[in-house]
Amino acid sequence: MAPISRAIDLNADLGEGVGDDTAMLTLVTSANISCGFHAGTPVLLRQTCRDAVAAGVRIGAQVSYPDLAGFGRRFMDLEHDDLVADLLYQVGALRALAASVGGTVDYLKPHGALYNTVVHHTGQALAVVEVASSSGLPLMCLPGSEAARLAHDAGLTVISEAFADRGYTADGRLVPRTQPGALLTDPEEVAERVLILAETGRIHAVDGTAIDVVADSVCLHGDTPGAVEHARRVRAALAHAGVAVRSR
Amino acid sequence: MAPISRAIDLNADLGEGVGDDTAMLTLVTSANISCGFHAGTPVLLRQTCRDAVAAGVRIGAQVSYPDLAGFGRRFMDLEHDDLVADLLYQVGALRALAASVGGTVDYLKPHGALYNTVVHHTGQALAVVEVASSSGLPLMCLPGSEAARLAHDAGLTVISEAFADRGYTADGRLVPRTQPGALLTDPEEVAERVLILAETGRIHAVDGTAIDVVADSVCLHGDTPGAVEHARRVRAALAHAGVAVRSR
Amino acid sequence: MAPISRAIDLNADLGEGVGDDTAMLTLVTSANISCGFHAGTPVLLRQTCRDAVAAGVRIGAQVSYPDLAGFGRRFMDLEHDDLVADLLYQVGALRALAASVGGTVDYLKPHGALYNTVVHHTGQALAVVEVASSSGLPLMCLPGSEAARLAHDAGLTVISEAFADRGYTADGRLVPRTQPGALLTDPEEVAERVLILAETGRIHAVDGTAIDVVADSVCLHGDTPGAVEHARRVRAALAHAGVAVRSR
Amino acid sequence: MAPISRAIDLNADLGEGVGDDTAMLTLVTSANISCGFHAGTPVLLRQTCRDAVAAGVRIGAQVSYPDLAGFGRRFMDLEHDDLVADLLYQVGALRALAASVGGTVDYLKPHGALYNTVVHHTGQALAVVEVASSSGLPLMCLPGSEAARLAHDAGLTVISEAFADRGYTADGRLVPRTQPGALLTDPEEVAERVLILAETGRIHAVDGTAIDVVADSVCLHGDTPGAVEHARRVRAALAHAGVAVRSR
Repeated sequence: MAPISRAIDLNADLGEGVGDDTAMLTLVTSANISCGFHAGTPVLLRQTCRDAVAAGVRIGAQVSYPDLAGFGRRFMDLEHDDLVADLLYQVGALRALAASVGGTVDYLKPHGALYNTVVHHTGQALAVVEVASSSGLPLMCLPGSEAARLAHDAGLTVISEAFADRGYTADGRLVPRTQPGALLTDPEEVAERVLILAETGRIHAVDGTAIDVVADSVCLHGDTPGAVEHARRVRAALAHAGVAVRSR
Repeated sequence: MAPISRAIDLNADLGEGVGDDTAMLTLVTSANISCGFHAGTPVLLRQTCRDAVAAGVRIGAQVSYPDLAGFGRRFMDLEHDDLVADLLYQVGALRALAASVGGTVDYLKPHGALYNTVVHHTGQALAVVEVASSSGLPLMCLPGSEAARLAHDAGLTVISEAFADRGYTADGRLVPRTQPGALLTDPEEVAERVLILAETGRIHAVDGTAIDVVADSVCLHGDTPGAVEHARRVRAALAHAGVAVRSR
Repeated sequence: MAPISRAIDLNADLGEGVGDDTAMLTLVTSANISCGFHAGTPVLLRQTCRDAVAAGVRIGAQVSYPDLAGFGRRFMDLEHDDLVADLLYQVGALRALAASVGGTVDYLKPHGALYNTVVHHTGQALAVVEVASSSGLPLMCLPGSEAARLAHDAGLTVISEAFADRGYTADGRLVPRTQPGALLTDPEEVAERVLILAETGRIHAVDGTAIDVVADSVCLHGDTPGAVEHARRVRAALAHAGVAVRSR
Repeated sequence: MAPISRAIDLNADLGEGVGDDTAMLTLVTSANISCGFHAGTPVLLRQTCRDAVAAGVRIGAQVSYPDLAGFGRRFMDLEHDDLVADLLYQVGALRALAASVGGTVDYLKPHGALYNTVVHHTGQALAVVEVASSSGLPLMCLPGSEAARLAHDAGLTVISEAFADRGYTADGRLVPRTQPGALLTDPEEVAERVLILAETGRIHAVDGTAIDVVADSVCLHGDTPGAVEHARRVRAALAHAGVAVRSR
C-alpha cells in the first residue's frame, strides 16, 4: 500500500428529503444537514442527525435563504439584520436537534444561492461570517471567495471546499451550470479527479490546465443521479491509493 | 405600606407582530417569546429578545404547532416524534437568537392550541415534557393539567400559571371562550383579580366561589384590546399593595 | 377478446414532487394534482397540469389542510370558514394554472388526513361539499362516507373511489394502516383486485368476504415503492380482459 | 361647487392583516387585496373580498414574491417560469375567493419588491405582463416603468398609478425611501397633493418642480401611521373641490 500522502474529508448535503441519505452516510465523513429553510422538516433533520451520529459522520449546519418553494436556489436581497437572524435561527435549531441525539454541529456551510452569493457579495458574506463567528463554528466555503477572505480576517477557521463533479475554469472558479463542462457525470472521471486532488492538490480545469486547489473537504452532490455511485468510486479510488478519508 | 405578602411574576406573549411589545416589556417580568411557528420572523424574534434583555425581562420560549396560517390556534394531531422535533427546533432557534443578544431562554411555554391540548392530551403532554426536560427548562403550564402532572413526575420545575383576564369555573378550569364570562374586560376587575390572587392565592370563579389557584406567574394577554392598560392597572394595584413583581 | 363489461377510471396523486409522474401519466386516466398546501410548488403544479393535458388525462384538484411540513397527513381542527377559504383558494389556484396550459379542473378530491376526516366528520365534510358545490365540481371520495352522503344530498356528482392496494374490512371500510393487511404489495394481487372489481363490482375483504364496492375510479398510489409497476400490471390485466380505462 | 374637472380612483393595500381595512374600505374605490404570498390567510382574504363587495369597492389582485417572512419586500431572483406560475397561482386563488362572495378580480397590481423590480427588470416585467394578459386583467403599475411599456406593447390596459404620500424626483421617479423627502406625513400636504394632481395632472417634486404625472389611480398606503386620516382628508378635499372619486 502506498504511504498516506494526506487525508481528505468528503461532504454531502443531507436531510433534504431527496437522494439516498442512508447510503451517503456510509461514504462521506461530513454531512451538511439542511436546517429547514430550503428543505427538511424538524423530524427529518433530527433523524438525519441521529443517523450521522450513528455513522460517526461530522455534522454541519447547511443554512439557506428562507425559500422552501425554490429549494434555496434563488438569490434573495436580504438586509444584514434579516440574514443574520435567519442564520442564527437555523444554526440554533439544528444544534438543538443534534444535541438531542448526542451530536454536535461542527461547522457552517451556506446552501445554494447563498453559497454562490457570498463568493462575491460582501454584505451577505459579512452576515455569514458574523454568524459563524458568534456561533463559534468553522465556515465551509469556496477558497478565494469573499466569504473565505472575510472569515480569515475575522480569525475564523475556514474549511476550503472543492467539488468532485463540477468543472473548474483555468482561474479556479466553477464553470457556471449553464455552460458546457459544468458537471462531470462519469463516475471514473469524478473518482480520478478527487484522487489527483488528494494526492497533488491540483484539479484539471476545463481547458486542461492543472490548477492548484485548496481542498480541506470535497463535496459529493447527494441529489444528482448516480451520486451514490460517484461516492462509492471516489471512496474506492482513495482507499486503493491509501488516502485516508476523515473529517479532521 | 403593607408588608409584602408574596411576590408574583407577570408574563405576556411577545414577538408575535401584534400588540405593543415595547409597552408590555415595561410592565411584565417574563416574556413568552414566539419561536416562529405560529408568528414572528427571526429578525423580529431577535429584536424582541434584545428588548427583553434590555428591559431585564425573563425570556421564555413560546413553542407552537407549525401553523402560521392559524396563529397556532388549531389543534393538530401530531405524532410524538414530529412534535418533539418541532419543539426542539423552536427552542434551539430561540436560544441562538437570545444568546446572540446576551440573553438566555429560561422556561418553556406551549402556545395556543398546544397549551390547551396538553391540559388533557397525555401523548402531546409527554412530548412537551420530554423537550422541556432534555432542554433543561422549567415548564410554564396550567396547574392541574396533564402537562403539569407529567412534568412533576419527571422532576421538572413547573411554573404554575394563572390568567388575569380569563374567567374560572368553580372547579378551577378556564371558562371556554365560547361561553359567557370567559373574558374579563374591565381593567379594574382584572387588576383586583390579580391583587387578590397575589395576596390570598384565590380567584373568584364565575359563580362567585372563591377557589384556590396556584400562581407562580400571571398571564396578561398582549394582543387583546386594552392589554397595555390592563397591565398598567395590575402593576399599579400590586405596587400600591406592596406586592413585589419579579420573575424569580 | 371478451366483451367490455364496463369501463373504469384509474387515478393517482401527482404533482407532489415524489414518484414518477411521467410514467404514471401514461397509465392513469385521472390525475389528482396537488394544490400546494401539502406539496408542490406553483411551477411544478403547472408543469404537471401541462403534462396531464398532453397525456389526455383528466385533472382533479387534490386539496389539503395547510400542512406542508406534514404532507397533509395530520388532522387539523379547522373551523368551517377557515377550511372553506383554504379549499376555495387551492381550487382557484389550480384552475388558473390548468387554464394557462389549456386544461380544466374537473373534480375535487380531498388529500390525506382531510380525506380520512371527511369520512366521518360532518363539519369538515360540509365544508368540502360546500366548496365542491360552489366550484361546480364533482367530488371524489369514499363511498359510504359522510362526505359522499352530504354531497348526494347537495345534488353533487359523486365519484366513488376504490383503492387498488388497500385492504378492506368486511363492512367495506379500509383497514387502518397500523393493522395487518392494510396494504397490498404484490403487483399481481393488486392487478387481480382491480380486474375483479371492474368486472364484478366486488372486492375480497381481508377476511375473505366478497363485498360490493362502488368504484367509479380506482386509486393507484403514486408514491409507494413499485407504484408504476402496480399501475402497469393493472393496465395490462384490464386490457387483456377488455375492460376500457377512461375517465368518463 | 366647482365643475368636475375629472374623476380619480383611490386605491389601498388591504387584506394584509395590518391597518384598519374597515375604515379604508369606506374611503377608497379600489382595493389591492393580498393573495397570501406576502401576507394574508385565505380566510382573511375572503373576508376582505366580502367587505370590498359590500362596500362597492373594486378588487385587484396584489401579487407578490413568495416571501411571507419578508412581507414581499425583498427582491427575489426568480426564473420566468417560476414567477409566471407564482403569479397565476395567486390570481386564481383570489379569483376563487372573490367569486365565492359575489365579487370579481378586476386588475393586477404587483406588491412591494416585485412592484419596484418591474419598474426596470425586463424579464420579471415580462412575466407580470404575461400573467395579466393571460388572465385578461388590466395592470396597475408605475407610469414610465418597464412593466407599463411592455403592457402597452402587449395591448393590455394599463392603470397608471401615482402615490399620495411619496416624494417625487424632478424626472418623475419616486424618491428612494432611504432619502429625505421620500414620505409625506402631513395629512394636509397629502390631501393637497392629490387634489392638485386630480385637477391639473401635476405633482410638485421634492425640488419644487411641477411635473406631469399620469394618474388613473392614486395609492393611499394603508399600513402607515395616520393612513386612515390621510385618506379622510383626501376624500374631503376632493369632495370639496367637486372631484369625483370612482374606480372606472
